[in-house]
Amino acid sequence: MKKKKSRVTSFEVAKLAGVSQPTVSRAFTPGASIAKEKRDRILAAAKKLNYVPNVFASSLSSKRSNMVAVISGNLNNPFYSESLQVFVESFQRSHRQVLAFSVQDGHDCDDVMMQAMRYPVDGIVVTSAQMSSELVRMSEGLGIPIVMFNRRVSDSELAAVQCDNTEGSAALGRLMVAAGARRILIVRGDPQGSTSGDRVAGFRSVVDRTEGCVVEEIDGGSSYSGARNAMIRRFGGPAPRFPDAIFAVNDIMAIGCADALREVHGIRIPEDVMLAGFDGIREGQRAPYRLTTVRQPIERMVTETLEMLDKAPDEQIPADERRRVIPGDLIPGRTIPGMERQA
Amino acid sequence: MKKKKSRVTSFEVAKLAGVSQPTVSRAFTPGASIAKEKRDRILAAAKKLNYVPNVFASSLSSKRSNMVAVISGNLNNPFYSESLQVFVESFQRSHRQVLAFSVQDGHDCDDVMMQAMRYPVDGIVVTSAQMSSELVRMSEGLGIPIVMFNRRVSDSELAAVQCDNTEGSAALGRLMVAAGARRILIVRGDPQGSTSGDRVAGFRSVVDRTEGCVVEEIDGGSSYSGARNAMIRRFGGPAPRFPDAIFAVNDIMAIGCADALREVHGIRIPEDVMLAGFDGIREGQRAPYRLTTVRQPIERMVTETLEMLDKAPDEQIPADERRRVIPGDLIPGRTIPGMERQA
Repeated sequence: MKKKKSRVTSFEVAKLAGVSQPTVSRAFTPGASIAKEKRDRILAAAKKLNYVPNVFASSLSSKRSNMVAVISGNLNNPFYSESLQVFVESFQRSHRQVLAFSVQDGHDCDDVMMQAMRYPVDGIVVTSAQMSSELVRMSEGLGIPIVMFNRRVSDSELAAVQCDNTEGSAALGRLMVAAGARRILIVRGDPQGSTSGDRVAGFRSVVDRTEGCVVEEIDGGSSYSGARNAMIRRFGGPAPRFPDAIFAVNDIMAIGCADALREVHGIRIPEDVMLAGFDGIREGQRAPYRLTTVRQPIERMVTETLEMLDKAPDEQIPADERRRVIPGDLIPGRTIPGMERQA
Repeated sequence: MKKKKSRVTSFEVAKLAGVSQPTVSRAFTPGASIAKEKRDRILAAAKKLNYVPNVFASSLSSKRSNMVAVISGNLNNPFYSESLQVFVESFQRSHRQVLAFSVQDGHDCDDVMMQAMRYPVDGIVVTSAQMSSELVRMSEGLGIPIVMFNRRVSDSELAAVQCDNTEGSAALGRLMVAAGARRILIVRGDPQGSTSGDRVAGFRSVVDRTEGCVVEEIDGGSSYSGARNAMIRRFGGPAPRFPDAIFAVNDIMAIGCADALREVHGIRIPEDVMLAGFDGIREGQRAPYRLTTVRQPIERMVTETLEMLDKAPDEQIPADERRRVIPGDLIPGRTIPGMERQA
């Protein structure tokens, strides 16, 4: 068994600099008050001894590193980059740090989970696709809490925070039907994730029950270019018949649809075809789009995620509080007619 | 001096599970081959002993944690969120992790730097505004290399990777002048950062030397809404006189200008007013905009940043290699007339 070289401590730095150990701590604490001359002396001593201040040294006793791994889905989707931004900013406010990982669509995140678990993280937030049950057991074994963000895992006890995808999509379906849509196209996302499935199901629970509704589904690949190309392929033939309404299960696909319909097919939205998305990303609310959509309450979802990470695993969270489903905000937008009046 | 409770080691887990220590390591290594039964036994032992695998334990001897702090500027600007994405993805490929921080525009990043230095990071990448020279000295004292990304600090020896902002902006100026622009409006960004200043200077080096050019500068706040509101205010009076061309020093402001000019003022781009941005963000290249702009080669900039972090501080980087200025890619777009032909 090899003996590890022990690390230089703040006490040794204090001794060399001729100050107390708490003063050394202050020299390395953001915002702490300390005279410039003293800090310089401490830094010189630290340099001489090759001392590196270590947030883990003080946190090992409390078993907290204040570092949380966030495994994001495809960051090309602005919903994930906006969520990552909120995680970074909210965590930073509570003196926690995000160790950032990303997983491409369609890839499982086992390898990335393994990489994350090698760091002394206080928890893991997973916003991306499938995880093996083995990995979940492993994290449980290690006492690292996991919270799923924007998805759920069926038949699992995993904590999850998500927007009410089913009800939000049903609301969009009701608006389209009320505005007269009967020939409806659904643009699906990632078939591996729960999110796309829940949104399609919620939307169909309305339109399938509506007399005279004809519903078609196509795959939009969860991305801007996927949805754009799907539109070009689907309506590329001579004299295509366009639907009354298109529901893309996320905003970035709705934007891809809008660009293709307008630029390639000369379609006006909503005069010729109605359109709705889901997520409420910034880009979808700008002048060229003003999408009718459901905004995911990211700030609140992040706050509840933090709350669950703080509780687990010491205090067990009761099963019925382990899955949080938060209502989304309906944004009227301009891509379903008659919505401005409801704004 | 308090004695710290010593952490459970992989050797103890190995003993309890009846395997060798390297097998325990394998159980916690992404992609390593190990029988399921063995891994389960090791996990059970790890759980019993409250063992947490620790990437730092093995890296302390090599003095590497494989963790790099990335301090981003305002993530509302897609350039920063796209850059953060490339950092996360590139670092992950080389088994490094990003510890993510963000700093709002106009705030100095000293506090955030202090927070970052408390973690055993291998380096700090700073994409945001001003840093005090004190903080720079502190990081030098601690032997933590810093690389500035997308900015430089005058009169400093700091390593920096940036796009050639001056030459890129000069190229955009030449295009506008060649297309006949004489009344020109510049929309400036963050006055604290070097980037906006360099772009304005590069652009003016061309237009100020052009006979008959009249140049005006306004502040666009570096953001979508800042630029949009600046346009509404500037041209809000009766019968405003619009310029021939607008150069916004970044794409997100160019998008804000385009939305306001079209939606509020009924201006066509480029027929009524030419427009150019800088950065090459995804959104700016979509159908409603197709901005004429200079794309920052983010992938290459990230690769060179990594290279410099790897060299420093053990091998000193010669002063003339410490500042890397990489040419940007001119994207013809459609917002300066005549550019399609050059595409």
